[in-house]
Amino acid sequence: MKIPSKIDFINTVARVSPHVHQTPILTSRLLNEISGAQLYFKCENFQKMGAFKMRGAINAMLKLSEAQKRAGVVTHSSGNFAQAVSLAAKNLNIPAYIVMPSNAPQVKVKAVKGYGGQITTSNPTIQSREEEALKIEKETGATFLHPSNNIDVILGQGTAAFELLEKHTDLDIIATPVGGGGLLAGTAVAAHYFGNTCTVIAGEPFEADDAFQSLQAGSIQYNDTVNTVADGLRTHLGNHNFPIIQELVSQIIRVDEEEIITAMRLIWERLKIIIEPSSAVPVAAILREKHQFKGKKIGVIISGGNVDLSNLPF
Amino acid sequence: MKIPSKIDFINTVARVSPHVHQTPILTSRLLNEISGAQLYFKCENFQKMGAFKMRGAINAMLKLSEAQKRAGVVTHSSGNFAQAVSLAAKNLNIPAYIVMPSNAPQVKVKAVKGYGGQITTSNPTIQSREEEALKIEKETGATFLHPSNNIDVILGQGTAAFELLEKHTDLDIIATPVGGGGLLAGTAVAAHYFGNTCTVIAGEPFEADDAFQSLQAGSIQYNDTVNTVADGLRTHLGNHNFPIIQELVSQIIRVDEEEIITAMRLIWERLKIIIEPSSAVPVAAILREKHQFKGKKIGVIISGGNVDLSNLPF
Repeated sequence: MKIPSKIDFINTVARVSPHVHQTPILTSRLLNEISGAQLYFKCENFQKMGAFKMRGAINAMLKLSEAQKRAGVVTHSSGNFAQAVSLAAKNLNIPAYIVMPSNAPQVKVKAVKGYGGQITTSNPTIQSREEEALKIEKETGATFLHPSNNIDVILGQGTAAFELLEKHTDLDIIATPVGGGGLLAGTAVAAHYFGNTCTVIAGEPFEADDAFQSLQAGSIQYNDTVNTVADGLRTHLGNHNFPIIQELVSQIIRVDEEEIITAMRLIWERLKIIIEPSSAVPVAAILREKHQFKGKKIGVIISGGNVDLSNLPF
Repeated sequence: MKIPSKIDFINTVARVSPHVHQTPILTSRLLNEISGAQLYFKCENFQKMGAFKMRGAINAMLKLSEAQKRAGVVTHSSGNFAQAVSLAAKNLNIPAYIVMPSNAPQVKVKAVKGYGGQITTSNPTIQSREEEALKIEKETGATFLHPSNNIDVILGQGTAAFELLEKHTDLDIIATPVGGGGLLAGTAVAAHYFGNTCTVIAGEPFEADDAFQSLQAGSIQYNDTVNTVADGLRTHLGNHNFPIIQELVSQIIRVDEEEIITAMRLIWERLKIIIEPSSAVPVAAILREKHQFKGKKIGVIISGGNVDLSNLPF
């Protein structure tokens, strides 16, 4: 059985909720006018460390045994998951070993250090990152946490959609970005058990459309290049989340880079909130296909707000 | 008697509330750590048209007679007040004549047009702006609205602080920026009647410190130059708000340009909200003088979020 059970999901909500912000849900008359739909923005950019990734990280760590907690956790990431693991580990008083590639932005390295993560620098290849993480696992006994292809991480990410459905029980659709697939799969599980007749869709950059291609092909596909401004979406699906996405997600809409940047700017200017490019992707998808969504009530997971203000796309 | 009465203020709240957003109040553990105080950010950047100015504009218009409403309103402004008057007038179905200087940013001209304001372009001097507005007043019978030196505008601006004190009755201090003095004076009236033992302070740029100088001199002073990034604070006090500020405001703290930009960036990065430079000024003031504010509960009016994303100071 591939889909996690309802009771597993409910237990996840109970486990995660005390450790995360119940983030606000914003609306905008103007965005509704522009889209022709009713949009409910679940603001995970206001989440601890600035992204939904906190939810999955804390859930996976809370499920560790006491002995595992003492030995700590290890991950490799150049992005939000590194910060999420560091902060969640700090809050739970668990050691966190973070492998970051030598080309990771200094602002991210600094953030991880600020949360108390113990950084190991690897070469910038995936292979080198994995080797370093494995070495740490062996040396310390730390548990490896994958940022998206781990059932506890997936369930944790789904708690954002659960909160959205708690407040707005009659949503027709929930839209998320798709990168590694953790948020999308978790959201799909939440909507499956707690949505009334709520379907789940995702936005994905044309420049990194492996999830779209994977659904078409019926097996996990990989990108040759990932030249997208949506830096959080450059990764690919995994064997734990792909079957969930296959079964429960109704549509992936691809968008081009200009659409992503336009949507990002629209949200900044009109909602007055900072969102990262990845978060603009589902908004861009709704605007691109707005004939589909006329009059629909759509929850949009705003995945995060960690951007380098010195390097904006506009 | 210079200070508006409590009943006038209460009537203002009743009049304004149905027409504006009751904006959210945000907090940040990190900002509390950095400042050593407990900060409550009243987010008027999420207000209609993106700034507190909506409150004063709608209050002044709602107080017009039916005949006055038919004749419309006129103002001169290159900034948020032009947008506020245009949107408030549109919502009340009143004609709005807006004099904008020929050097006003196109983004602001476009916003005013979008809200249905009828624009007249003047030369970029204050004298030319005033002449054009006077001409329109005479030709159309429209009522002139001053952006800050008008008692109804002042009372309207004070409703933001009222909402803050309704939620947090035990604030020690409320901090605002000071430019024309409408927000500061209105806030001071609100705290006077509804604060427990709440004092009011303001932040002001060194580069446009006329309000600070006015309090020192005991009469309204003017800036020779206003080379500040806080474009909303380049104006001076007026005869209606200065006496209120003299009587009810306990302190004006001046900050330099670097402090303003640093505080603005801090809020963007940590609160993940878009604020304009003027809104960063009271935050910068609290950080500059943090020894004064240790452990205090401070409400901060985040005045607005209208920034040109193509022209950021960082």
